[in-house]
Amino acid sequence: MNDILPFETVTLDDENSALVLIDQTRLPNDVVMLRLQALEDIREAIRSLQVRGAPAIGVAAAFGLYLAAKQSKATTFADFAAELKSASDTLNTARPTAVNLSWALRRMEAAAHRHQQEPVARIQEILYQECMEIYTEDIAMCRQIGEHGLTLLKDGDGILTHCNAGRLATSKYGTALAPVHLGQERGMRFKVYADETRPLLQGARLTAFELMQSGVDVTVLCDNMASQVMKNGWVQAVLVGCDRVARNGDVCNKIGTSALAILAKHYGIPFYVLGPSSTLDFSIETGDEIVIEQRGAEEVTQLWYQRPMAPPGVSVYNPAFDITPHELITAIVTEKGIIRPPYADTLSCMEA
Amino acid sequence: MNDILPFETVTLDDENSALVLIDQTRLPNDVVMLRLQALEDIREAIRSLQVRGAPAIGVAAAFGLYLAAKQSKATTFADFAAELKSASDTLNTARPTAVNLSWALRRMEAAAHRHQQEPVARIQEILYQECMEIYTEDIAMCRQIGEHGLTLLKDGDGILTHCNAGRLATSKYGTALAPVHLGQERGMRFKVYADETRPLLQGARLTAFELMQSGVDVTVLCDNMASQVMKNGWVQAVLVGCDRVARNGDVCNKIGTSALAILAKHYGIPFYVLGPSSTLDFSIETGDEIVIEQRGAEEVTQLWYQRPMAPPGVSVYNPAFDITPHELITAIVTEKGIIRPPYADTLSCMEA
Repeated sequence: MNDILPFETVTLDDENSALVLIDQTRLPNDVVMLRLQALEDIREAIRSLQVRGAPAIGVAAAFGLYLAAKQSKATTFADFAAELKSASDTLNTARPTAVNLSWALRRMEAAAHRHQQEPVARIQEILYQECMEIYTEDIAMCRQIGEHGLTLLKDGDGILTHCNAGRLATSKYGTALAPVHLGQERGMRFKVYADETRPLLQGARLTAFELMQSGVDVTVLCDNMASQVMKNGWVQAVLVGCDRVARNGDVCNKIGTSALAILAKHYGIPFYVLGPSSTLDFSIETGDEIVIEQRGAEEVTQLWYQRPMAPPGVSVYNPAFDITPHELITAIVTEKGIIRPPYADTLSCMEA
Repeated sequence: MNDILPFETVTLDDENSALVLIDQTRLPNDVVMLRLQALEDIREAIRSLQVRGAPAIGVAAAFGLYLAAKQSKATTFADFAAELKSASDTLNTARPTAVNLSWALRRMEAAAHRHQQEPVARIQEILYQECMEIYTEDIAMCRQIGEHGLTLLKDGDGILTHCNAGRLATSKYGTALAPVHLGQERGMRFKVYADETRPLLQGARLTAFELMQSGVDVTVLCDNMASQVMKNGWVQAVLVGCDRVARNGDVCNKIGTSALAILAKHYGIPFYVLGPSSTLDFSIETGDEIVIEQRGAEEVTQLWYQRPMAPPGVSVYNPAFDITPHELITAIVTEKGIIRPPYADTLSCMEA
């Protein structure tokens, strides 16, 4: 791995004329940097998971919309805004349920509309500033999560993580892995245990890759081995990301998260959830209100590139997420700070 | 799957001239019945896991040694015994750590030696009787485990199981799955949730196959989904096998078992361990004395028939087994009955 240059998950090239990203569908076997200019190619990159992770998708979409705006030959705001809306609609259909995608696109369009009195060339500059702001805010958000998270860890700690809530899911640092990357920059050394994370193996493919790239000591294990790793005394903290947090502190995250929380409680290991404050969903009282996405059987039975590993026609249960009850969560870490139980009180203080 | 005829895991053909077994390395994609006569082929079948599961290996070895003995042209016991020992040594090296393998071979040789005054043709008959006894005793043992296990279940129960402790690991019925198969014969209907069981996927490949063959309702899930299945209220009992049971009731079984026990306790679901009384190891005080076999990284990173799914050179933790502490086990079921806590007392009553 040492011959692979440092990569950025999602960025603009030096001339601000192309979106550059690492093709995550090819990891860990091939490190392929994509350089995309056409709107349709950028849409396809998001759709096909070449870039994934809610924050990274938002940034990619903002860059993509800027590139479309930059290529506009419109001379009036009306024409320009129509082109912008068309491009935004195209990108927005790439992953219909990704909240960050539509959020970033709406923010870019709003910036254009706020300056509709200005010449198109000026609005194009403003859109460049806006997408760079989305990008740098994402980095700052992750860095702050990392700063807060680091206060919960000691140099040399063993850390268990699940799925990929790392730099490959964001512009830099990641969320759950932000303390690890930030600590590594400062000379701290953690030992990370990465659940492979069935069925799609984001831990084995992505977390292991990005941590090795950063020089972090990482060990991959099958999800069912976490109990033994904890029993061995190798884990001082569990760090996981989150897709949504309910008002009472229940956390929706990648399937397998709730099992880790139960194991951590059994072994007396702190269990931390890390994510942007935008994942706090005050419209939801408890995790019971969250409908869990069920995905196709072939993810479980066919694995990838190979023969089926289960009998044809077998029933399969394949939920994409699970709900970790708030009473199993030691603390929730966002860019704004560390929230501890009772979450019903502490979370509501964050409701702006 | 309906077009596949019923199979036997391991048996003799109608003329008692060949070992017949289902090639488990080809499941679930191809159902291939092997008909083996040559000693070297039988050894290779055991070595390459075409037949696996401690009881099934013991039976296959006994049948194999009988077939070798039957082919002998020796006229004196000394010549016959030398040939028998040579064949036994050949088979015994197929899986050096499999206790049932050497146990069955020693038992066959001892039967021959007990009758060394008899003509070789008569000793050959006696060896046929001995291997058939080993086979029928295995079936009876599994049936008894099933009978006892059934008293712990209700018709219609949801059952979670891990790995394959079923008929594919024994002559018939299995151990952990014996109550399911026996209940199915009697018109009871269980709903079985089968952990796929990483890294080697015995649950997805073998448990799902054998249960579908028997008409049992079976659903495959990734190991990390068991918590959600339990939370859904779908599981009334967890049934697992065991490789070894210590004097205090600690159980060594397939990696992932201890996590299931912790989850079952969290959700208030009974956790049952089922296995032959021969797995009770009174020479071991607690599970801490059991050294856990560590297996190769490639089982985790390479899966089968395909490209690597983790970065080259990544550290991998791949223990084959884990220890489930006795305090998490609701009951241990053997062919002799149901053992409940305190195991330090109840197990010692079984020490013959």
